[in-house]
Amino acid sequence: MKILILGADGYLGWPTSIDLALNKHNLLLIDNYEKKKLMKKNYRKPLVLNKKIENVIPVLKKVNKNVNFKNIDCSNYKKFTEVFRKFKPDAVIHFAELPSAPYSMLGYYEGWKTLQNNLQSTFNLVWNVKQYQPNCHIIKLGTMGEYGTPNIDIEEGWINIKHKKRSQKFLYPRQASSLYHTSKIMDTDLIWFFSRLHGLKATDLMQGPVYGIYTNNFSTENNLEPTFAYDDMFGTVLNRFIVQAVANIPLTVYGSGNQIRGHINIKDTIQCIKLALKNPSKKGVLNIYNQFTQQFSVNQLANKVAEALRKINLNVKIKNIKNPRIEQEKHYYNAKNKGMKKLGLKPTLLTEKAIIEMARYVIKNKKNIDKSIISPKTTWK
Amino acid sequence: MKILILGADGYLGWPTSIDLALNKHNLLLIDNYEKKKLMKKNYRKPLVLNKKIENVIPVLKKVNKNVNFKNIDCSNYKKFTEVFRKFKPDAVIHFAELPSAPYSMLGYYEGWKTLQNNLQSTFNLVWNVKQYQPNCHIIKLGTMGEYGTPNIDIEEGWINIKHKKRSQKFLYPRQASSLYHTSKIMDTDLIWFFSRLHGLKATDLMQGPVYGIYTNNFSTENNLEPTFAYDDMFGTVLNRFIVQAVANIPLTVYGSGNQIRGHINIKDTIQCIKLALKNPSKKGVLNIYNQFTQQFSVNQLANKVAEALRKINLNVKIKNIKNPRIEQEKHYYNAKNKGMKKLGLKPTLLTEKAIIEMARYVIKNKKNIDKSIISPKTTWK
Repeated sequence: MKILILGADGYLGWPTSIDLALNKHNLLLIDNYEKKKLMKKNYRKPLVLNKKIENVIPVLKKVNKNVNFKNIDCSNYKKFTEVFRKFKPDAVIHFAELPSAPYSMLGYYEGWKTLQNNLQSTFNLVWNVKQYQPNCHIIKLGTMGEYGTPNIDIEEGWINIKHKKRSQKFLYPRQASSLYHTSKIMDTDLIWFFSRLHGLKATDLMQGPVYGIYTNNFSTENNLEPTFAYDDMFGTVLNRFIVQAVANIPLTVYGSGNQIRGHINIKDTIQCIKLALKNPSKKGVLNIYNQFTQQFSVNQLANKVAEALRKINLNVKIKNIKNPRIEQEKHYYNAKNKGMKKLGLKPTLLTEKAIIEMARYVIKNKKNIDKSIISPKTTWK
Repeated sequence: MKILILGADGYLGWPTSIDLALNKHNLLLIDNYEKKKLMKKNYRKPLVLNKKIENVIPVLKKVNKNVNFKNIDCSNYKKFTEVFRKFKPDAVIHFAELPSAPYSMLGYYEGWKTLQNNLQSTFNLVWNVKQYQPNCHIIKLGTMGEYGTPNIDIEEGWINIKHKKRSQKFLYPRQASSLYHTSKIMDTDLIWFFSRLHGLKATDLMQGPVYGIYTNNFSTENNLEPTFAYDDMFGTVLNRFIVQAVANIPLTVYGSGNQIRGHINIKDTIQCIKLALKNPSKKGVLNIYNQFTQQFSVNQLANKVAEALRKINLNVKIKNIKNPRIEQEKHYYNAKNKGMKKLGLKPTLLTEKAIIEMARYVIKNKKNIDKSIISPKTTWK
């Protein structure tokens, strides 16, 4: 299959690219290293930094000669269109978005940059698919954060509303708690607009916070390990906790720690993307999956990390700090996630073994830990 | 009251500005004439074109010395912020958006321009209010088109959803049928985000298609009449019908004509804005009103115009043409509009007298009618 991967350099994009390369797909990888630049500009050095794609393309080409790379800004219509029209993809996987809630709440510039970049990249994509490749399947990474924390069950993307003896199916109402998450709501609006009006085929993967490291023999042997961030801005909560445990500093729980989310191991992210590729939506239909495997509160996550890592003799402490975010701390949360299981997802659970495996990887790279970039620097005010 | 009016040159902005000037408010009017430029660029000359504001400010100053004008692009953060911080408004009325569904569907450039302009103007506004004037009341013109045509009653902005024995109040789900209308959905997301997170005071006026002319003794005597468009791109349906009747060409009904919408006379628009000014929302609350007075199908509108104008001896014909838009033509439609009536709105109904009054105004300007700009040139494909 001819697959265009937008944002191929990222935490999810890079392991997805390697996996699909090994699966012998014809791939065009796109990135402009914007996230790498932002991490550098904001002094958030990751624990492990993957190499620039152009430097490792020869290694990938040894196993699959149909893998190429272009350094393109997906929010640049002219350049993006040139590449898109020439490649004529069967499917596009769209990771090309600024992914950080704290970054989007830093100030005017960062907020608008997040909105503009994410919306214009998505607009360029749907416009090109409509215009030049209407049978192309769009797979877009959404986020569970679009739903917020409503007091009713979170269904998978859609809800049938009964109101005064009539009923209507709607996109499940979305209400996010950062500008980043709000930009993803707007993306959804655009993709659904183009799907229903112009008959596009699209899949929206509403992903929960991702944790873990995705490596395989090929990536380990060839030093193609993905970026692993643990800082307050680009790291996710579980990855941060494990780095704090290894660095012998307390796990910092924001506020009461009763915030519940659906989490997913990055190994399952790759599985889900491959399942979505195999199961394209019909024309004019937007398939939506809630892409997480287990719900945990922040306290539960912290306790799980502490218990598991005490077994390898790490003295883990937990500390509640003032919540830098504006979010509900006591709330109902019950999100559905049957869709991916029906397609065949075999969930990787957050076991003690999985936590210890992650910690061993972090210990191997312990010299890179910078304790000063872990505590939150951005508040929502 | 110190009121900032964004988009003061438009069909609604200009009569609102005159009315509030006569009411002795301290006003700063803002426009960059972008709509005038787009009308010119697309060869859509209006029946009546209002004068540039800088040229008539001296006339307004005779009745109210506290009226000023700045030619500013509201999507320009730096310039907008300079003006906003200096003026320190108590209220802002936000009309500064590209308002045309057909324009937004012309092509890539027009679609993105509509999204970018509308979203960035709104972002600049909410950001400035949060940062520098948190008690300022934001009055934003939304559109009934954000709701689309759902199979359940359209409530006023919000809906309480009961689902599996639990319930939650949400923004009423929105699903529009043009990129313009989609840009307004995104505006709503932004304004609601800033209201609930940062405690802003905001009112969203979900307006239906507007018809009519708003003049008073002062504007007539001083040649301050507002722009009146009747073309396929910037004209609204009833205004277009009346011009077609006067020009002795058939009223063009798109498709079956069974599309139902809630309509409003521009005189009531001005009333509603004044009622919103008098009734600001509380901090952190987004008040939403459905701003229309009567529901009609397109066929009903055409028949009303034909019947009324036959009484003044116009030989009105009606013609169904292929619908250039993608929209439901047979649908349920029952929208609520109690809110404004509770605040004191006295609806101006679409009577024969009202239609004839509009036709007489059009007849007075008959020499300006260009028959070639009335039929739709933009299709939704």
